Amino acid sequence: MPIVQFAPFASLVQPAFWHELTSLKIDVLRLSDEALPITGYYTLGRSITDRETGSEIVLGCNLSVGPESFHKSSQPPSGAFPAKGHFKNFNTIEDFKAADKTALFNQETERMWESIVTTRDTSSLNSFILITYADLKKYKYYYWFAFPSFVAKPAWEIDELGWKLANEDLSHDSACFLLTSIHAQLRATPLPFFLVRAGVEIAPIESYASFFANVPPAEQTIGFVDPSASPTNPGWPLRNLLAYMRAIYPATTGELRILCWRDADVPAALAGWKSRVGIVHTAPPADAAAAVARPSAVGWEKTPQGKLAPRVADLAPMMDPVRLANQAVDLNLKLMRWRILPALDLEKISTTRCLLLGAGTLGCYVARTLMGWGVRDITLVDSGKVSFSNPVRQPLFEFEDCVNGGKPKAECAAARMKKIFPGINATGHTLSIPMPGHPVPPTSVAQAKEDVKKLEELIEGHDAVFLLMDSRESRWLPTVICAAKGKIVLNAALGFDTFLVMRHGVRASAVRPDAKQLGCYYCNDIVAPADSLTDRTLDEMCTVTRPGLASIAASTAVELLASVLQHPDGLHAAAPPPNSDPSALVGAGVLGLVPHQLRGFLAQFRNLHIVGAAYNRCTGCSEAVIKAYETEGFDMILQALNDDKYLQKLTGLDKLYEEGQKALEDVDWDVEDDGVDF
Amino acid sequence: MPIVQFAPFASLVQPAFWHELTSLKIDVLRLSDEALPITGYYTLGRSITDRETGSEIVLGCNLSVGPESFHKSSQPPSGAFPAKGHFKNFNTIEDFKAADKTALFNQETERMWESIVTTRDTSSLNSFILITYADLKKYKYYYWFAFPSFVAKPAWEIDELGWKLANEDLSHDSACFLLTSIHAQLRATPLPFFLVRAGVEIAPIESYASFFANVPPAEQTIGFVDPSASPTNPGWPLRNLLAYMRAIYPATTGELRILCWRDADVPAALAGWKSRVGIVHTAPPADAAAAVARPSAVGWEKTPQGKLAPRVADLAPMMDPVRLANQAVDLNLKLMRWRILPALDLEKISTTRCLLLGAGTLGCYVARTLMGWGVRDITLVDSGKVSFSNPVRQPLFEFEDCVNGGKPKAECAAARMKKIFPGINATGHTLSIPMPGHPVPPTSVAQAKEDVKKLEELIEGHDAVFLLMDSRESRWLPTVICAAKGKIVLNAALGFDTFLVMRHGVRASAVRPDAKQLGCYYCNDIVAPADSLTDRTLDEMCTVTRPGLASIAASTAVELLASVLQHPDGLHAAAPPPNSDPSALVGAGVLGLVPHQLRGFLAQFRNLHIVGAAYNRCTGCSEAVIKAYETEGFDMILQALNDDKYLQKLTGLDKLYEEGQKALEDVDWDVEDDGVDF
Repeated sequence: MPIVQFAPFASLVQPAFWHELTSLKIDVLRLSDEALPITGYYTLGRSITDRETGSEIVLGCNLSVGPESFHKSSQPPSGAFPAKGHFKNFNTIEDFKAADKTALFNQETERMWESIVTTRDTSSLNSFILITYADLKKYKYYYWFAFPSFVAKPAWEIDELGWKLANEDLSHDSACFLLTSIHAQLRATPLPFFLVRAGVEIAPIESYASFFANVPPAEQTIGFVDPSASPTNPGWPLRNLLAYMRAIYPATTGELRILCWRDADVPAALAGWKSRVGIVHTAPPADAAAAVARPSAVGWEKTPQGKLAPRVADLAPMMDPVRLANQAVDLNLKLMRWRILPALDLEKISTTRCLLLGAGTLGCYVARTLMGWGVRDITLVDSGKVSFSNPVRQPLFEFEDCVNGGKPKAECAAARMKKIFPGINATGHTLSIPMPGHPVPPTSVAQAKEDVKKLEELIEGHDAVFLLMDSRESRWLPTVICAAKGKIVLNAALGFDTFLVMRHGVRASAVRPDAKQLGCYYCNDIVAPADSLTDRTLDEMCTVTRPGLASIAASTAVELLASVLQHPDGLHAAAPPPNSDPSALVGAGVLGLVPHQLRGFLAQFRNLHIVGAAYNRCTGCSEAVIKAYETEGFDMILQALNDDKYLQKLTGLDKLYEEGQKALEDVDWDVEDDGVDF
Repeated sequence: MPIVQFAPFASLVQPAFWHELTSLKIDVLRLSDEALPITGYYTLGRSITDRETGSEIVLGCNLSVGPESFHKSSQPPSGAFPAKGHFKNFNTIEDFKAADKTALFNQETERMWESIVTTRDTSSLNSFILITYADLKKYKYYYWFAFPSFVAKPAWEIDELGWKLANEDLSHDSACFLLTSIHAQLRATPLPFFLVRAGVEIAPIESYASFFANVPPAEQTIGFVDPSASPTNPGWPLRNLLAYMRAIYPATTGELRILCWRDADVPAALAGWKSRVGIVHTAPPADAAAAVARPSAVGWEKTPQGKLAPRVADLAPMMDPVRLANQAVDLNLKLMRWRILPALDLEKISTTRCLLLGAGTLGCYVARTLMGWGVRDITLVDSGKVSFSNPVRQPLFEFEDCVNGGKPKAECAAARMKKIFPGINATGHTLSIPMPGHPVPPTSVAQAKEDVKKLEELIEGHDAVFLLMDSRESRWLPTVICAAKGKIVLNAALGFDTFLVMRHGVRASAVRPDAKQLGCYYCNDIVAPADSLTDRTLDEMCTVTRPGLASIAASTAVELLASVLQHPDGLHAAAPPPNSDPSALVGAGVLGLVPHQLRGFLAQFRNLHIVGAAYNRCTGCSEAVIKAYETEGFDMILQALNDDKYLQKLTGLDKLYEEGQKALEDVDWDVEDDGVDF
């Protein structure tokens, strides 16, 4: 009698599975190569009819994995049955190649056999192994499936009738009843393996003894959901099912009536059944010990070329490039957390909405470094157009942006950022920031009011504001608005070979008890900001700096923001004392120190740490100024723009000046002659 | 009798004049607004014949300035006559507008009158003034010409015959003789003003007394090169010529025979003369004092709309954008020298040919900062392709460079640099640098030999080499070649939040007497560089760094190169002692300190200065290694690549190790029990 031949499983990996693996590796697994549970699934055997010849073409006997395969509670798609597996991802291609596949395989079959002989359940009969190596830089995934299957010795044989269509022996009515009953019951209880007795009733294999207690052997049928559609070869699951039957019920091996269940579609089945029935048998085990002795197993999947070897999925050409870019950028960032700083809260940085006032040298470099940190919402403001000298120093512009008068800088920078990374949400606004010392003529008041409103809205809609302009006075208005609205302010300014990078302190009314209030950009001034732009010579209009300075200052400003965001006290973090031991990370956060002000000196390649206290007469952040702004709004701003005495009066700087003058007058300038010749 | 009416000069500025002014301002004038001599020129009056009506159209009476106008020894174009002027460029538009034009004008007319009455020469009769303000950021040039002209009181009158064509009174032969004689003599001696007496002879105005001594008044003619072609209005130069005659020869004012010389083209003149003759006269001055009293003057040029106002030349739309970009980039750089550091030798930096080994994060940022310094020759080498994670961190790539497998990085970076600045000479080479610890299989030896040759050629063809790779061992081969060829080496390497930037010292045999030899990248190692790449996990393949780190390190490396190049001792400059007072610029060059090694710590926002001495057993720069390379060439390299003991043997590191091991063996490990419990 012929030996039963089985149609082996073929693995089918959905591309989304690899995407999910990528996320899993970056977010969860990281460097772990521990084996993890995984769920695959298979469906009933499928065949299609060749439209030309009318012949049936049997499709592969697939075990699929998809993105949901990693989720423990995932349900297989409708009509599909789960298969449990173990998945192991290696860290290097060398590890993958050198993996001890025999040990892995034995471990899995041992587990399966244990499950069969100890708990006697069928849930592990469809176990599989998947080993992978994911080259996430190139989107190449190396993998190898094994579908362990116990070798029957002696082999099972099928009787001379072979695998008959299941309805051949039945009347139409009986067949119809059998079909619809099994179908309905499998829908209610999706059993990959089941018992059928006349009636038609089905039950799990595990209830064999009781379910078949009074059923004549000829009416006992053992069914399984068959992924094969081959007329002669039942699918792989039957192989382990037979091994199970032989181990648990050795007496049954004389004759087993098997139903290869292949009819998911009732109307189609009524026209022509696909399920098949056959009688199989083998010699019973010699004794009880032989029955439960683990048989050998086979099952590493062969390549389509018939070789026992791993396969590779190269997703790069078929992946959506935008998605690839998103994942790649994410990967680089998550590697920091994964390998270096598990406490790093990347989302806190990447979700910080950043407003960049100034899209020049500093603005472009700040935008680039923010992109490097994964910041997704970046808005730029500038009033200028791209000029010919810009592209070599401002790394978001190209030559073509300068011609025909130049594109607006902010919009152009935002557009270029999208070309760099399509996932970015970058916007540019052409806007002139009103400045003290630059009076607003009556005809322009409406425009100024609109500009202020726009600036207020932009600041309101962001979390961190970078002051990256090229004049002192243009920083005043955003300083006041940000202080009022409690925004994070990062300020960067360039000299020829020196830079200032600082964070503004929180406003006085928000300072925590016992904390010192840190100053803003204007806290050292004893005069209000005034016009420094009119009547500038060419060299003053261009920012004359050593070319490397801006990128250093810009990246320092972004890294200071990152350090502040990662500090448990955030913007309230105390500044490290300026003269502390450099190696002592006093008051450091996850990323390190959070200085108040940094002065960089390129002539010495050194940075100086400065702590500047807030000044209660400051024209930028004192409560008098912020409250006047909060109460009077644009009217207050207009006064500050038009009346160069206004801010000094408001803060009391004018009195200070008068007192100082008076003090000078009262000085007795007569000096005692001490006999020294000068 | 009718008063003589003059056709005034109209200024004609060639666009090249403004280009020249731009260079002059940036290279020479800088912030100076001193008045400078300038030369304009004018030609004989020109008219054209309307092809439809046949009537003559008189062209403008132009005084032109061109690029040569600034050069003292410049010759006017053939057929043109020079006019001397004074040129004054203001630094700001406000200064330009507020200029005391009356004072400027009076100063010029005073000078002209002095020249007339004192030296009695005619050379300053065509003087002019040009004031300008050049907005070099926008390529807008504001300017105003004045052609000072003395007002005759009473005015000169022309007799009833008016301005007759010069040949009307003459026979054809006489006219022909007059024409060809004057023409020939003016070609030999280009006099803008001249005397003619029968004969036909001409002479300078200055020889009036002697030349006309025995000539009857009716045969005395005073000629001038007339820029006007108007039948009724002689050109502007006549106005000051008449003022001259009245001041110097008051007696002649009763009647002067004037030749308005307009016939440059002899054949054309024979067909129809254009020169005109007229008899002018005025009342003689009351006395000698009245004769030499400076008359009032007029002459600020009116706009084409007839307003007394400055004009503006907007060159941006008409200029070649590539040229504009070149000038603009130059300008920004030269401003540094002009305003901050007159000793800065920009050319020394911009002519340094730079080779960047690695076109990743560091390579892109280094390339950008070099462009900012005006470096024109930049070559990149990389073996990789642009991947999806690159653009947000590597500022020469865009998303589109990653798709379809990615463009080759080096070539792509070079192409992008040209898009940023068309004037750059950027080239990219895809090349794998052979590395110790990565043996070359026999089948790849030919390729490795070719790669080494290519690398040697590239290093040979450059002045400074940046090592910007992402592995330790890939820096070995260029370290050796550069040491042998005496190239400047800048080395930058990144950790997570720390960086190293260093310059390699010169090789031992090139160290100056009494100088200390500084080390290279390998001088601290006691093992040879080996394979660190194989079997790396994902996190090790990606450089995991804080996103702001690379731009800081890259710009620091470029600025260190700039500082070295500007140091009088260049690469031989001693490194500042690591613990010196930060404010003391010990051994500083024009741009400041030239440290040997800088270690940056982003967690502290600090840089540490390190001085590392060269090690005579160094596998990178010791004489043993360099000499073996110089002697054996590729064979030596191949040994170093294939035999991981070779470099240690060559340098004696192996013996050192053995001695160390032996020393350990000889140690008596028995320790006296000193009664302490651990």
